[in-house]
Amino acid sequence: MPAPLKNDLYLRALGRENTERTPVWVMRQAGRYLPEYLETRKRAGDFMTLCSTPELACEVTLQPLDRFNLDAAILFSDILTIPDAMGLGLRFEAGEGPIFDKPVRTRADIESLPVPDPADELRYVTDAVSLIRRELDGRVPLIGFSGSPWTLAVYMVEGRGTKDFSKVKGLMFSEPALMHQLLERTADSVTAYLNAQVEAGAQSLMIFDTWGGVLSPAMYREYSLAYMQRIVDGLKREAEGRRVPVVLFTKNGGAWLDAMADTGCDGLGVDWTTDLAVARQLTEDRVALQGNLDPSTLYATPERIREEVKRVLESYGHGPGHVFNLGHGIHQHVNPDHLGVMVDAVSEFSAR
Amino acid sequence: MPAPLKNDLYLRALGRENTERTPVWVMRQAGRYLPEYLETRKRAGDFMTLCSTPELACEVTLQPLDRFNLDAAILFSDILTIPDAMGLGLRFEAGEGPIFDKPVRTRADIESLPVPDPADELRYVTDAVSLIRRELDGRVPLIGFSGSPWTLAVYMVEGRGTKDFSKVKGLMFSEPALMHQLLERTADSVTAYLNAQVEAGAQSLMIFDTWGGVLSPAMYREYSLAYMQRIVDGLKREAEGRRVPVVLFTKNGGAWLDAMADTGCDGLGVDWTTDLAVARQLTEDRVALQGNLDPSTLYATPERIREEVKRVLESYGHGPGHVFNLGHGIHQHVNPDHLGVMVDAVSEFSAR
Repeated sequence: MPAPLKNDLYLRALGRENTERTPVWVMRQAGRYLPEYLETRKRAGDFMTLCSTPELACEVTLQPLDRFNLDAAILFSDILTIPDAMGLGLRFEAGEGPIFDKPVRTRADIESLPVPDPADELRYVTDAVSLIRRELDGRVPLIGFSGSPWTLAVYMVEGRGTKDFSKVKGLMFSEPALMHQLLERTADSVTAYLNAQVEAGAQSLMIFDTWGGVLSPAMYREYSLAYMQRIVDGLKREAEGRRVPVVLFTKNGGAWLDAMADTGCDGLGVDWTTDLAVARQLTEDRVALQGNLDPSTLYATPERIREEVKRVLESYGHGPGHVFNLGHGIHQHVNPDHLGVMVDAVSEFSAR
Repeated sequence: MPAPLKNDLYLRALGRENTERTPVWVMRQAGRYLPEYLETRKRAGDFMTLCSTPELACEVTLQPLDRFNLDAAILFSDILTIPDAMGLGLRFEAGEGPIFDKPVRTRADIESLPVPDPADELRYVTDAVSLIRRELDGRVPLIGFSGSPWTLAVYMVEGRGTKDFSKVKGLMFSEPALMHQLLERTADSVTAYLNAQVEAGAQSLMIFDTWGGVLSPAMYREYSLAYMQRIVDGLKREAEGRRVPVVLFTKNGGAWLDAMADTGCDGLGVDWTTDLAVARQLTEDRVALQGNLDPSTLYATPERIREEVKRVLESYGHGPGHVFNLGHGIHQHVNPDHLGVMVDAVSEFSAR
């Protein structure tokens, strides 16, 4: 029997219920800006060992909660665990980001892709979720996550970071049916993976569509949004007698928030290039909104950080449904104390 | 006395006059996808020699016009010639992009930055413009260009390519007055530089704001748009008895087209993430629009390329004021014949 939640602000805000103040968490809150994270990572040896050892993943997941008054924990993992479990050979190279040794390029590559069994190849993830839930002991809810099918496909086809997306878009434009096959299989893998996270104890889910914003509006709907829709339709939306809210986040997707809200998700991530006031107009309070301070703001003075927090809160305006966050992951060279200033300012300025 | 223009479709479209068909040119049309370009570049030895030798810059500027029915030529140069002329030491490293050996970081760095004299350190550019005009002999108009102040500042402060813009945004958030000083000086340099290009024979101008889209709406207005406004206000807008139209292009700036149109520019570049129909609604036919096929479309079959060209033309709809282009520079691995298919399709489908 899991411990009852002591702080459910995050879940209530995603349900667009009234809250005493605006809840706050931060993308990549367990990350390289924290000296204690760097120590654990050093102990782990490499990044994938850190991800795939439940005790270590649990340890770093909890680190930011001990420093800051955050209202949610997010599973420490990588968005590329699924293609790795499909056998593509994920590794990380310094200064290069993720690399797949066996990228997916041909019909044969795509047709032979397995849908990984979350209870088998991805067991280390669900084990981490269970352990984190136990260790959290009801402090705050736990968020599970995955990359979006389009975003996973970008990495799977390109094999490494890219500036012009020529391989994945080449496939999309020259072999659309094959691209759809890849996305379908990936979407089904993500659905099974996220449902397994919920079964293991995730209390909310987030889908990161890092690369949806490089598509045209028509292509975004066809190649990214349609597959997030497929996932939303296949997710368990309730667990432990409570709704498991789902948040979609397309970086640079400000123009498509309206269409994203139509998927039936509970919340949308908004990056800093769209004002929350505009995002709210576009979505007409059908969903909660999560964001959206520019992560670089944390390089500013504490005074300036507080001003910018105020500006973001005022941009959202009155009424329920706002979860404060950065508009993207926190940068590695940020002074952790500055994040503390931000978190405290959110509480102070949003208290009702 | 310069030769009279035989084809002024491009200038007329930017003036929102009726044209027999939609004119077309392509960003980076003189570039690595052309085998004849690669040959000239090999002969030059390195990229900066190619840019700074007027005969070679002229040669590659004209190459795409000999292959395709394009309606404008664009000066072959780099967006970073100004910081190079300021003494920052520009060089290009394979796979790395541009690097400045002496990036700008401190108050002393910024206060000692000169405003380069276009007749001196940048003489190779105006010499190239004069030569190209002579060699064009009135075939099509010549476009001059520069990077936007914000975009130049990104490279000047970061010193090389960046993913999170932490140094330049760090300066912006922690030392706003200093950042404004850098942008002011850069804007004044760009203004003098573009006016010198017009005096040498450029018949239209374009300002590339490659990185404006990484800013929040408020920061975009304050740190990028304000300085493009300053440039627009300071430009010679007529030469040889004819208007010299100015086009602004902020990549990922779809949400700000309305504000951009208010600068008094003649046209706006639109990337493929915004439908031209939406762009036209936002700007209410106050300016011409240039764009916006996803460059990756050129990896598709000729048939599919033709369909997508049609879709872009239909998205703009009836009436004057459209210049067809890609939504960003052409990719280096594109088959040149596919660009030919695109150019011919624009003529065929837009003939009135």
